Formats: sequence, structure tokens, C-alpha cells
Amino acid sequence: MDEFALIEKLFRPLAGPGALDLKDDAAILTPPPGMDLVLTKDAIVEGVHFRADDPPQRIAQKLQRVNLSDLAAKGAKPLGYLLAAAFRKDTDPDWLEGFAAGLAEDQARFGWTLLGGDTVATPGPLTFSLTAIGTVASGKTILRTGAVAGDDVFVTGTIGDAGLGLALLADPARLPDAALRQTLIERYQVPQPRVSFGARLHGFAHAAVDVSDGLLADAGHLAKASGVALDLELAAMPVSDGARAMIGAGSAQPAQLLWLGDDYELVFTCAPSSRAKVERLGAEEGVPVSRIGTVRAGGGVHLLSDDRSEIDVESIGYTHF
Amino acid sequence: MDEFALIEKLFRPLAGPGALDLKDDAAILTPPPGMDLVLTKDAIVEGVHFRADDPPQRIAQKLQRVNLSDLAAKGAKPLGYLLAAAFRKDTDPDWLEGFAAGLAEDQARFGWTLLGGDTVATPGPLTFSLTAIGTVASGKTILRTGAVAGDDVFVTGTIGDAGLGLALLADPARLPDAALRQTLIERYQVPQPRVSFGARLHGFAHAAVDVSDGLLADAGHLAKASGVALDLELAAMPVSDGARAMIGAGSAQPAQLLWLGDDYELVFTCAPSSRAKVERLGAEEGVPVSRIGTVRAGGGVHLLSDDRSEIDVESIGYTHF
Repeated sequence: MDEFALIEKLFRPLAGPGALDLKDDAAILTPPPGMDLVLTKDAIVEGVHFRADDPPQRIAQKLQRVNLSDLAAKGAKPLGYLLAAAFRKDTDPDWLEGFAAGLAEDQARFGWTLLGGDTVATPGPLTFSLTAIGTVASGKTILRTGAVAGDDVFVTGTIGDAGLGLALLADPARLPDAALRQTLIERYQVPQPRVSFGARLHGFAHAAVDVSDGLLADAGHLAKASGVALDLELAAMPVSDGARAMIGAGSAQPAQLLWLGDDYELVFTCAPSSRAKVERLGAEEGVPVSRIGTVRAGGGVHLLSDDRSEIDVESIGYTHF
Repeated sequence: MDEFALIEKLFRPLAGPGALDLKDDAAILTPPPGMDLVLTKDAIVEGVHFRADDPPQRIAQKLQRVNLSDLAAKGAKPLGYLLAAAFRKDTDPDWLEGFAAGLAEDQARFGWTLLGGDTVATPGPLTFSLTAIGTVASGKTILRTGAVAGDDVFVTGTIGDAGLGLALLADPARLPDAALRQTLIERYQVPQPRVSFGARLHGFAHAAVDVSDGLLADAGHLAKASGVALDLELAAMPVSDGARAMIGAGSAQPAQLLWLGDDYELVFTCAPSSRAKVERLGAEEGVPVSRIGTVRAGGGVHLLSDDRSEIDVESIGYTHF
């Protein structure tokens, strides 16, 4: 099958140490001494997680990046990945080359390599699954369960941009400024997982999660797993210039941003004694970090206004955007 | 989404050590000291690798077993797996329960557990990919590249049964004996990977491969990877009672069996000094093992008749069956 021969040719240069040149149906991994492995696996389907006319480079990058974001939230450093790809037999060779180029570009950017996988034919939508493997010092993996009362809650970057970008793809008129609009759209199209920042969080972050479902939803997962309540301050939420412009134009409300997904920022909690460490890490990695709240005994995520009264987040939720 | 809640409920009991109860989007693996990890990943697609009306238990089992066979060929012991599953939203709850039951049954049988994964919606065919992780003593993984001139070539079990079973599903009249026919069909439907046998091969097997594409094709992969020639004797090939009956009835030719896939037996090579070890291992594991040829300098796979003249295997190949 010519298409499979082409894929083999395109994928072989992506193979890293242990991949046995992709010739052996298996990879060998000698775990670095003193390290645990963190494993995560996300799948994406054409028409569900990406559009048929998305550039193949970008699909390959998004596939890597959603998984890299999961590793970052665990405090893990990317090591390698396995890829299962279901292609249609009529998939264009140019498309395949673009896909491989996207894989190659992000491999180099994030410092990991292809370990192995499988390529199969499908009569249906293109479907990819990636198994990501990262390393973290033994016993130091950051879990969702570790938040304790008294912790600060931090978030990297800005919130809601990807969701606004998706909305702008459908209705560009909601943000007339073309440059700001493009920035938001790129936040949706090319996630920037906090890989090197996340890999340095272990040791002082008590709990972490990446923002894929939306800040409130993902913070809710962390609160539930840790058995604590999170008090988050609306005024402390980091908002980009583009999001600010949309809020100014009446195209979005601040609290709505917290329901929007796909930002791939990190939410994490630390003891207040770690504030200087967090600040230094952000400065060294060039990652903006905002303190957005605190952890207390209880349950759930509570969004507070300036006067510390609780905002009914459900009433301004995702479904209203 | 109710279907996803059901899947979560069904999959959670499958989670093993390190899976964090499937609640954390990642698994943690502390590699056993002195062990390498062997990783392999196979995907299956409805309508391509299984039929829409196959029982879901059997699909789940086949998904595990094709991957377990890859681990066995590496001399690795199964440790755990990650599963990506793309379901249609209208997938029947009974189907999902059957699928989970199949996973559970084979987990218990083969002594490994679910580590994590992802469940997504698809508008297309059901698509599954499994990343299998096994352990082998450090540096002892059996590769395809290790065969050396002078080695014996062995194969486990019998050859060609699964392919004959597939043919019998389409045309049962080719084997009138119902019991023998059923045995061959089951060989196709429920592969029996040589897991415990394979896990004891390291240390004396020089090279191994599992028979998924067909004995000649897979032996060819081994020969090519090792840079050697394999001389295989047609008369030494292990043939089941069912296959023998089909040959007797003129429904199959002996050499055709060597082109048929999906047997999931192991082909491996060892120094002649290891013959007693191979025999003992087969006896202890209850696995029939046949010596079917030898390795010599050169290239390719050569099938020899009783008088050691070479049989033109291409002329009686798969496409003629």
C-alpha cells in the first residue's frame, strides 16, 4: 500500500532513542534512575476535535500539545510518544507530509521524540491517539488531590482567549480589531502548553490541572479531587488585551471567560510560603502567573466579586455565551 | 453525556496501580528496578479489523491480545495498558458493558491492568487504540535483529489456522466436520497470544517475531532486520487437525498456510545449544514448539521441500488462497 509506505518514510525520521527505528513493532524504554514515568493519552477525531479543512501541521501540533499540557500539569518533562493514526486510503500525500512536518516541528520545540505506534486504514473520519510519556523525580508527580486549606491558587497566562477565538472564527464582527482578533484565534488554533514551566513546578506545587474544559470546570475537578473549596476572585483573573476589547465592546462578560475551554494554561496551588518561588519561576520561564484565589476547607469553586460576595457562576455560564 | 458517564463507571473497576482511579488524566508508573519497559501500540477499526456484528467482548479481547502478542515477541511480561476509545453517541449500553466485560476478563487472564486513556465521540466507525506496556530485565528485550547464522528457527503452536477460520466463516462447506471447523474459526476470533511463554524466552532466544501477517511474511521481517537468511522446511511446519482435514479435502495446500495471518504464534531463533531449554520451556508452559528451520548467512526466507529443493513460495501465495 503506497500510502502506508509514504507514512513509514515520513515518520521514520521522527523516531528517537528506543524506537528501534520504528522497525520492530515496539519501543524499549530504559527508565532514567530515580524517575517515575507519567503516562497520558488523548485522542482526536476529524469533525469532532478538528475540522477537515484545518491545516494538517496544526492538527499534528494540537495532538501533541493537548497531551503535553497534561504532562505539564503533572510536573513532568516530555520524554516520548506513541502515535496511532487512522487514515483514509485517499488521504492526500501532501496532507500526510504536512502532518509529519507538524509532528517534526513540535518534537523539536518540546524536546521529545516518536517512540512507536500504529498506522491503520479507516473508512471514516481521520482519528489519532497519542500516548505521551514524561518523567518526573520519583514520587514527585503533581496530582489533582494535593491542594490543602490555606494554599494560594495560581493560573498561568490569560483565560478565555481560546474560546473567544473559536467564537470569532464563527462571527468575526464581535471584535473589529483585526490584530487582536487574530491573536485570539491563534490561541484557539495553536495551543501553547506550559511545558517547561510545568516541569519545574514539582517540589512546591501541591496540586495542578490544565485548563482544557474551562477554568471553573477544571478548578472544580481539582477541588473535588482534593476535597477542598476554592475561592477565586473575579477581579484577579488574568485577561488578555483581546478579551478586554471584547468585554469593552459588550461582546463578552468577564465571568464568561472562566467557562471557556482550550486555553491549556495551568491552575495550581502552593503554600503561601512559596510565593517568591512561583514569581521567580514565572520570571525565569517568561510565563505570566497570577494569584487568583485561595484554598479553604469545604467543597466546590466559589467566584467572588470585589466585595467578596459570591457570584452565581452557573447563571452566566458557558451555555449563555 | 450519559454514555460517557456509563463508560467511566464501567472502566473504573479496571484501573490498576498507578492509574489514579482514572480520575487524574494521567497515570504514574514507577518502573521496577532493573527492568526496561517495552511499549507497543495497535489500533483497530470497525469494518476493517473487526466486524460491526462481532460480539463486543471478543473485540475487547482481540484488542488486548494483538498487543499482548507483540509484548510476548519481545520477551516482555505485561504490566498495564492505556486505551483510547472512539464511540458513537448511539452505542448501545449493552454493547459497552460487553466491551468492558471483555477487557476485564482478559485483564485477569493475562495479569495486567488499565492505566488510563481517553474516550471520545466519533461520527464514524468504532476505533480503538491500545498502548501496551510490558517489563523485561534491563537490556534483555528480544529484538528482530538478533538472529545469527547457525541458529535454529522455532515456531509455537500450529500455523494457518486463523486464516483458514476466516475463510470458513465465508464458506463453511470447505470443511464439513463441524467440530474441526469451529476450532479453526475460534482460532481466528479469539487469538491466544503466547504471553507466559514469551515472557520466559529472553536470555536464550536471539530474535523473535509474532505471526500476525503470516509466517513467511513475519519470518521475512525477522530475516531482513537481522540481515540473515532463513531456511524453513515445509514438512516441519506444525499443522492442526483442522488444517490437515482441509488439506486432505483439497481445500488448502500446505504452503498456503504459511501465508495466512492472525495466528499470533511466536517465531524465534536460538543457538542449537538451547534446544533442551526450548523443549523444557514448551513442556512447562504447555505450548507445542516445533523446530522448522535454520538461520544462515544471506537474505530472505527460503522454503524447502523434503529433498531440500526450494519451493517458489510466491507462486502459491496468499493471493491464490
